[in-house]
Amino acid sequence: DEQITVADYLLTRLEQLGVSSIFGVPGDFNMPFLDYVEDHPTIKWIGNCNELNAAYAADGYARVKPHSIGVVVTTFGVGELSAINGIAGAFSEMVPVLHIAGVPSTTQLKTRPLLHHTLGDARFDVFTKAAEQVTISQAMLANKVQATAEIDRILTDCVSRARPVYLSLPTDMVSEKVSSKRLKIPLSRILPPNNPDVEEFVLDEIIKVVHEAESNVVVLVDACVSRHDVKDEVKDLLTATHFPVYSTPMGKTTIDEEYDRYGGIYIGSISDPVIKERVESANLILSIGALKSDFNTGMFTYRIPTTHTIELHADHVLVRHAHFPKIGMKQLLPKLTSRLRDFRCQASELVVSKPKLEVPVEQTNDITQSYFWPRVGKFFRKKDVIVTETGTSNFGILDVPLPEQTIFVSQILYGSIGWAVGSTLGAALAARDRGLGRVILFIGDGSMQLTVQELSTMTRHGLTPIIFLINNSGYNIERNLHGMNRKYNDIVDWKWTSLLTTLGDLNGTLSMSYTVRNKSELEKLLDDPQFANAGKIQLVEVIMDKYDTPRALKMAAELSTKYAEKSAKQF
Amino acid sequence: DEQITVADYLLTRLEQLGVSSIFGVPGDFNMPFLDYVEDHPTIKWIGNCNELNAAYAADGYARVKPHSIGVVVTTFGVGELSAINGIAGAFSEMVPVLHIAGVPSTTQLKTRPLLHHTLGDARFDVFTKAAEQVTISQAMLANKVQATAEIDRILTDCVSRARPVYLSLPTDMVSEKVSSKRLKIPLSRILPPNNPDVEEFVLDEIIKVVHEAESNVVVLVDACVSRHDVKDEVKDLLTATHFPVYSTPMGKTTIDEEYDRYGGIYIGSISDPVIKERVESANLILSIGALKSDFNTGMFTYRIPTTHTIELHADHVLVRHAHFPKIGMKQLLPKLTSRLRDFRCQASELVVSKPKLEVPVEQTNDITQSYFWPRVGKFFRKKDVIVTETGTSNFGILDVPLPEQTIFVSQILYGSIGWAVGSTLGAALAARDRGLGRVILFIGDGSMQLTVQELSTMTRHGLTPIIFLINNSGYNIERNLHGMNRKYNDIVDWKWTSLLTTLGDLNGTLSMSYTVRNKSELEKLLDDPQFANAGKIQLVEVIMDKYDTPRALKMAAELSTKYAEKSAKQF
Ligand SMILES: Cc1ncc(C[n+]2csc(CCOP(=O)(O)OP(=O)(O)O)c2C)c(N)n1
Ligand SMILES: Cc1ncc(C[n+]2csc(CCOP(=O)(O)OP(=O)(O)O)c2C)c(N)n1
Ligand SMILES: [Mg+2]
Ligand SMILES: [Mg+2]
Repeated sequence: DEQITVADYLLTRLEQLGVSSIFGVPGDFNMPFLDYVEDHPTIKWIGNCNELNAAYAADGYARVKPHSIGVVVTTFGVGELSAINGIAGAFSEMVPVLHIAGVPSTTQLKTRPLLHHTLGDARFDVFTKAAEQVTISQAMLANKVQATAEIDRILTDCVSRARPVYLSLPTDMVSEKVSSKRLKIPLSRILPPNNPDVEEFVLDEIIKVVHEAESNVVVLVDACVSRHDVKDEVKDLLTATHFPVYSTPMGKTTIDEEYDRYGGIYIGSISDPVIKERVESANLILSIGALKSDFNTGMFTYRIPTTHTIELHADHVLVRHAHFPKIGMKQLLPKLTSRLRDFRCQASELVVSKPKLEVPVEQTNDITQSYFWPRVGKFFRKKDVIVTETGTSNFGILDVPLPEQTIFVSQILYGSIGWAVGSTLGAALAARDRGLGRVILFIGDGSMQLTVQELSTMTRHGLTPIIFLINNSGYNIERNLHGMNRKYNDIVDWKWTSLLTTLGDLNGTLSMSYTVRNKSELEKLLDDPQFANAGKIQLVEVIMDKYDTPRALKMAAELSTKYAEKSAKQF
Repeated sequence: DEQITVADYLLTRLEQLGVSSIFGVPGDFNMPFLDYVEDHPTIKWIGNCNELNAAYAADGYARVKPHSIGVVVTTFGVGELSAINGIAGAFSEMVPVLHIAGVPSTTQLKTRPLLHHTLGDARFDVFTKAAEQVTISQAMLANKVQATAEIDRILTDCVSRARPVYLSLPTDMVSEKVSSKRLKIPLSRILPPNNPDVEEFVLDEIIKVVHEAESNVVVLVDACVSRHDVKDEVKDLLTATHFPVYSTPMGKTTIDEEYDRYGGIYIGSISDPVIKERVESANLILSIGALKSDFNTGMFTYRIPTTHTIELHADHVLVRHAHFPKIGMKQLLPKLTSRLRDFRCQASELVVSKPKLEVPVEQTNDITQSYFWPRVGKFFRKKDVIVTETGTSNFGILDVPLPEQTIFVSQILYGSIGWAVGSTLGAALAARDRGLGRVILFIGDGSMQLTVQELSTMTRHGLTPIIFLINNSGYNIERNLHGMNRKYNDIVDWKWTSLLTTLGDLNGTLSMSYTVRNKSELEKLLDDPQFANAGKIQLVEVIMDKYDTPRALKMAAELSTKYAEKSAKQF
């Protein structure tokens, strides 16, 4: 067998997984590894401004590149702890990210001298302990004998369970020679088969329930459909059955929104009334990949009795009140599809009213939230990647149906603001790899302030996202939740249109920035083909009223207050 | 007893500790508490751009405000994990910081619904578990009965042990009513007395050793002198004995550098040769508050035999090879001083050569590292607060003697870059409270990129630091450690002089920015009284050569490589 370095082994595995960009920040404990990254023929070192942004970027990259993973490299202690919140977000939202921490040499890990980046108390394992909280697998490459097996183990966990994993890479392990033998066998993504007896039983149960529902069945797709890679299986099921399909916020664009049996976004009480009625009046909801978090369910306001529900999950199935552990949807779905074909005729009669994209006619020339979202909806094109941030953007976008093959990226469960900037960087690199369309970010002024420097990295790598920066004088979403007029919800106003030139486009040739203060200005810009196809990074500062809030957010905030009050009374 | 809210109890305690500024970022789980902060008559909410920067600011604040603490408020999960690296830095460097995480209500902590900001798996305790790694005490305010005692417990730990502590504050506990009784008793800072017999024994031992050394004793002050609040005790000892005194990098300015018995910075092999000779040839080193980390000791190159050493620490004493646990220096020092008085006459004869501030005359008009540091040395004034960042700045400043009553702030052990920006914000607020002089930051272009947004918060609060931004096209310190010409050590060049206007000084009246490309330009600026006393925030971009490295850093990097090689061979 050929002997290769641990670094090359790892990079070859990453290459096999389709990784073309690695994010992170150098440090003396990871630079020996970065030499290999920089010299790698197909993998590119991105070089972020800071580690949190790098982790967010790895997350965004993985989201837009299915079957691949995001990779972030940090340095011992200072770097890895800076990134940990981004890794936690990937855990929460089920995004496969590999966090490589360059750490002191194996000798130093044993002798534990008083090195920089330590806590000064010889506890060299604290950072790993912290990482254990937010990753599903960890490997400490303590010797070369186990190295390749350990790398394979965590990478397999990462891709098959769609969660972050952690690799502690000592400086002296990087260049150790190991056998390349294992590389010939690709990492397995194949899930173990379901127990055939139980599976058969579950299929029978489901068919029975669908029968009872007289084919009045609605499919609800959620986050885990894309996270656990059953998009194709679900598409087959829908094509075979013609069941109407709705999506949750976290499932948005999992099903092509132009698909004629797609009926829009269901969010409990926050839903558009027509959608709410259609979903809640169905005799049966076939929920696939549900992730019923507060903001993903309209603050837990589903009005769907359990007796009307089947839930398919990555590792279990629920049929009404019955639990079937260890029955995975990926394995189950093809069989379910072939059994459900027979319902197609009846199901085809169920009416789906397609969400419409109507720009309201308003008296004011101000850019209102109610006008803005449908209006940008008209600007979107096939294959665009649309990233939104926690805040008004995450809610405003929900009512906008998106063109076919668009990819919607957001962090609705974890909701760490600033994430969208890093994520857009990663998404843009992934989109470039995949030959997708434009990458378009919607982000609030408050959120942008957390991670703004990463705009610089976008320019550095010639990425050309369009960034809509909603300038509404602070934290609008927070005002709605608490302290409407509190000063802590105000922020410093920035010269937003100078950001791109200040942060790297020194002679102004690589970027464009605009401020739009009213509808006419926005229309003009959106209708300008030069803007739509600029091939440069662009930032549009959109001036909106401090108190203007999208419909869905207003309702969510009200429900949130009610929910908090209710749960306070529970005890 | 008067009943007050938990929030007011906590804020009153903080006020008693001299806290006037609280750092952080709002979130729905901390806003109920922020209402109390915003309404507090003497405590100000700072409102940072992101949580890591806020933690760094709390750290900087505490460093410049002895006997007070830094306070940072974050929101559940996303906020607290974003801040954790800043808290870890405070742990490492022994800075008293209180991290308050606003968390879900006590009911929700029990029922654990699928809330935003969670990992989606009902583990609500992961963030606290992470915090436990980097704080010395934690309190979860689960009920009002224990609330005030718990608050007092962690605050006492914070101030007496000079390390960060963590408070988990559920939304519904904020307004619970508790007795204010305990507030009448100030938090104790008094340390338990040393065991008198052991203490007496130790004193005798020390005197014996000093005798043997024929009064040829040199005092070496280090980080823990200021961290563990024995500055005054050490000063008394020095005045009483006239022993020559030297400092480590982390101890810089603990002893007034204009004090006539102060001889400069000792860093093992990296020291100025005269200093090295003076220290290492002494018969005895009385080391006080040592923290012998790699960069603080010239990569462990002290040439001082243990038989020539006495070490006083916060909780133990070492006399040559003998260990005396639980003998604290704070309690010991006054007694030691009175016993050592007798050596004064002899000690006075020991010659101290004061470090001189000489600006070299060079052929080139380029701003070199060797010229820059002494030159800015001439610009410093009494009571200035000087903050330096990991990189060339941390090393360049070492050879510059500082005027009396200046305070030097740096993070030499933990070395997390970006820290200095947040830290400068905190330092500037503390300096304003204390009526100190100017706050002057030296930071590299690479480091500034991690946390740049916090410049905005400085402007917001009318702070007026002078920021010297060393533009040397990337990570110079890293180049010296590994990969001199590697691309991963390059960064994006920014329009540095546009930062302050872009990030908040919209009409350019609150700030000034300059670029200096050569010595003449720098001289002119430094000699301009308007610059020296601007009363505005100012940023000076200093253009330096990519490969130019301060003497001490070059030596440290070489030693670092040697050290790594040596420790690799050890096994
Ligand atoms: C890291 C982090 N810190 C704090 C919060 C709390 N938070 C949620 S939304 C928000 C304000 C967002 O403001 P902005 O981006 O301006 O959005 P908009 O005004 O459009 O609502 C804050 C502070 C968070 N979610 N994540
Ligand atoms: C959070 C963090 N990430 C990475 C590092 C590794 N690191 C140490 S110094 C440095 C470069 C600093 O560059 P710059 O600020 O430009 O300093 P200079 O060029 O003056 O040396 C880096 C990346 C670190 N110490 N902390
Ligand atoms: Mg906003
Ligand atoms: Mg630099």
